Parts: sequence; C-alpha cells; structure tokens
Amino acid sequence: MVPLRGLALARRPSETIPAIGKSPAMVAAEFEKLGIDASTSEITTSACVAGDYLSSKGVEGSYVYVIGEPALMSMLSERAGVRPIGGPDDAGKSKRTLQSEGHSIATLDPPAGDVSAVVVGADGDISYYKVAKAAAYLLGNPRCLFVSTNPDPAYSFAPRAGGTAATLAPAGGVWARCVAMTSGREPDIVCGKPSRSLGKHMLSAYGLDPATTCMVGDRVDTDIEFGRAAGMHTLFVESGTTTAEAAAAAGPEQRPDFIAESIAVLEAALVGEAASD
Amino acid sequence: MVPLRGLALARRPSETIPAIGKSPAMVAAEFEKLGIDASTSEITTSACVAGDYLSSKGVEGSYVYVIGEPALMSMLSERAGVRPIGGPDDAGKSKRTLQSEGHSIATLDPPAGDVSAVVVGADGDISYYKVAKAAAYLLGNPRCLFVSTNPDPAYSFAPRAGGTAATLAPAGGVWARCVAMTSGREPDIVCGKPSRSLGKHMLSAYGLDPATTCMVGDRVDTDIEFGRAAGMHTLFVESGTTTAEAAAAAGPEQRPDFIAESIAVLEAALVGEAASD
Repeated sequence: MVPLRGLALARRPSETIPAIGKSPAMVAAEFEKLGIDASTSEITTSACVAGDYLSSKGVEGSYVYVIGEPALMSMLSERAGVRPIGGPDDAGKSKRTLQSEGHSIATLDPPAGDVSAVVVGADGDISYYKVAKAAAYLLGNPRCLFVSTNPDPAYSFAPRAGGTAATLAPAGGVWARCVAMTSGREPDIVCGKPSRSLGKHMLSAYGLDPATTCMVGDRVDTDIEFGRAAGMHTLFVESGTTTAEAAAAAGPEQRPDFIAESIAVLEAALVGEAASD
Repeated sequence: MVPLRGLALARRPSETIPAIGKSPAMVAAEFEKLGIDASTSEITTSACVAGDYLSSKGVEGSYVYVIGEPALMSMLSERAGVRPIGGPDDAGKSKRTLQSEGHSIATLDPPAGDVSAVVVGADGDISYYKVAKAAAYLLGNPRCLFVSTNPDPAYSFAPRAGGTAATLAPAGGVWARCVAMTSGREPDIVCGKPSRSLGKHMLSAYGLDPATTCMVGDRVDTDIEFGRAAGMHTLFVESGTTTAEAAAAAGPEQRPDFIAESIAVLEAALVGEAASD
C-alpha cells in the first residue's frame, strides 16, 4: 500500500469547501464546521503562494495593483509586506471614470514605476476600470510583475438561497486573461493548480516527498495535472465536473493513477497506515 | 492602375474615428466633422452585421442578452426585431447581486428557452453579473446563439481631457473571451474584422467585386487579414500600432499588397480614376 499523508479524512465527502476569496483562517473555519480539526498552517491557498512569490522578489514596501477580494489583499501585505491598491476601491467604476481621469500611462497614480506587481485573482466586483488600470501598470513598467492566482475559467455557483440548479460563474482565470489580452503580456507566474510553482512550494513548505504523497482531486485539468507535474501519486474522485470515464480517457499529463467514487476510499488506507505505525 | 471604390478621401488622414459603441449615424456625424460627406447607408459597423446575422436566423420577437453599449442594443432591435436585455441595466452589478437572486439556470428571468442569442461587444460598464448571466443563457439553452461583435483585445485610449500619453483599454473581444471561458462555448460568429462573415456581408450588401476593391487599414491582424480573406486588394498605411516593417514581414495571410505612409496616397489614385471615367 502506498503510504498516505494528509490533513484528515472528510467525514461528509459530499460537502465542498469553496476557497474562492478566502484566507487560510476562513478555510480552517469551514473545515471546523465539517468536524475536521485543521490549523491555518496546514492550509495553502493560491493567495499564500502569490504572497510568497512577491516576498521572494524583494518588493517590500512597494505598491501592488490588485484585482481580487480583500482576503487576497491582506495576504499580500501580510506575506510580502507590499501595499495593495485597487480591489474593492475600484469596484463598479466604468470607462467614464477612466475618461474623467484622463487615463494615460503618464498620469497613473501612483506612477507605474512605483507599482512592482499586478496580482489578478477571483473578483466578484470586476470593472472596466480595474482591467484597464492593471493593463496600464503592466504597459507602463516592463519590470512590473504579472501574477495570476488561478488559471480557472469558471466554478460551479451554488446559490445560497432559492434556486434549484447550479450554473457556472467566472473564476479568477477569466480576469487574468482580460488583463493579458489588453496588455499583450502573459503572467509571470500562475499560482494555483496545476502550476508547477505551487507544487514546488508545497513540497518544500511541508517537507513532503512526492514519492510518498498522493494528490486527491475531482478535476483532471487542474488537480490531477498538478499532482503529476509535481511527481506525486494521484487519486481521482467523482465529486466534481469531470466524470470517471473522462478521467480514464485523459491524456498522459492528466491521467490519474487511481480512480474512486469518493474520497471515502481513503478511510481504509489511512486507518491501515495508522494501524501499521 | 487598379480601379478603386470608396466612401471619400479623408482630408486629414491623421484623424481617427473611433467607432466603438457608435451607430452608423454617429459615425457619419464624426465623418462630417472632418468635412467628409457620408450617408449612414455607406457605413457598416459590426453591430449592423450582428443585427443582420440574427435577422437571418429568424429570431424576431425573442429576447437577446447583450453585453454592450446602447447603440448595439438599438441596432439589434432595429435590424432583427429582437428584444435586447442586459446592457446598461446590468452595469455595476456584482457577484453579491447574483447571489441575492439565487443564480441558477432554473431561475433565470426571462427563462433560457426564451433567449435566442447572447451578443457580446465593447462595453465600458462590464460587470461580474453580465458575464455570469451571458454564460448562464448559453449553458441553459444549447440553441442560444453566441455572437461576438469583435475579436479586438484592446484599443488605444485617447484621453478626452488631460493626460499626455495614450495607453490601452479593453475592447469587445476581451468580454467575448470572458463569456467563452465561463460557458465553455466558442462564438458562433465573430462579426468584426477579420471575420469572413463581415467580408461576405459587405461585398453583397454594396454589390462590390473583390477584384476591383481595395481594403485600406493600419493593422495587419484585423484590416489586412480581413481584406485578403475576402479576396480584395489590400493597402497598409502607417497610422496605427503596426509599423511598416512589421507589415512587410507579416505572414502570407496578413501581408498587404501595397504599403504607404498615409491614406493620402489614394488621392492621386482616386483623382486619376475620376479623370478616366
């Protein structure tokens, strides 16, 4: 049996924990609701990786223009000591606002040279103004880093009240694509799955050996590709948008080592491991 | 000499006429300011083509969800007899609005079956809500058409007041890409240059013979590619973002037949044609 390491086994595998726009503390609180004891240090989000990436670039004290939620902005100032601008302040602003400001690279405030990075993540309040400003900072300063927290095009939208069927809504990868198209620049790093940067970060941060680690996920294009790229074992479970048939038919980079109906299959494996300790 | 047909020769070739979000009447008024007499019937915008496309699909009386400016919505109701919804009504709406409505395909209003098309163009008031709603209509009704007015990723933003240097801002192609990523569907038609649909439409609408028509433009990836795809002669002029060197080095699909510094080169040709009539 392959030894497995992991946080803990979800007692109610059908529950999902949407991490969009949430800090590790907020995710830990969601785990607690499911009866799972998790510390914030055991949780890594793409915002954490974005913060660590900026920290490694030595841009402390500089401005960072953010398309994203407040949790992302806090994480950036906390982990990299930068000064996030944009975000909720630029919500609901249209092309008219940009025109009234006489939008140009020369009149940007703060000036392009003072902005070390543009960070683009999930944002429920996207605006024309935000996309144009982000592109202007990238165009106005060739050294300005372009950080995309996630490549995801969409996520299932679970209505909180009313509504009987789910649909899809735009995820952070959509806004990163907007900024890339407008500026003509591609991201310097994509922090979320299936990024190799994230894999390296997690293996090193938690001291994991990929040969004895298993990535569990329900999407082949993010979860399984991520695990394979990092050299981990991979287990596909049928709780999401990818079917087991599609997972079995996936190309070599996205084909899981194991396929199971549910994450519950891990219970026996983890109990077995504990017994043999 | 190749006989040339055209609207009229711009007297001030350095002036540009931004047609974004403008109706033919609005564009004609801009031409008039430059001393050029143009009738609305001589002007075709991507919104006209979008309207004619919907008209050809026999969707009169149905709802059409629009990401775009009021001029696009008017053109669609005028040319195709449809009932445009969305647009300015959904400006500034965030993910919170969507959540408060219990966003799902089952609760869409009007229902997905009553919406025959999603039309996406330039929009200075883009919102999270608009992208999610457009994707939901495409996902909820496989027969719903997906019309993109333009593939353009960006356009030069000319400040109206203040500002010394131009920068770029997101064009309609960016929002079409957002909807495509979120819904997982590609547009059924892209109306603007370099679309073949537009070429066919213009040749037939104006009774033009491509062998005696010259497409003049300052971008190889839209203007020249469009002219070549329609079988027209092509003239590249150096008034835009593409340089003459880049135009000369373009691949076969985007290489112009003629290169000139300015559209003024046409004056001699047109005068010559008039003299030989």
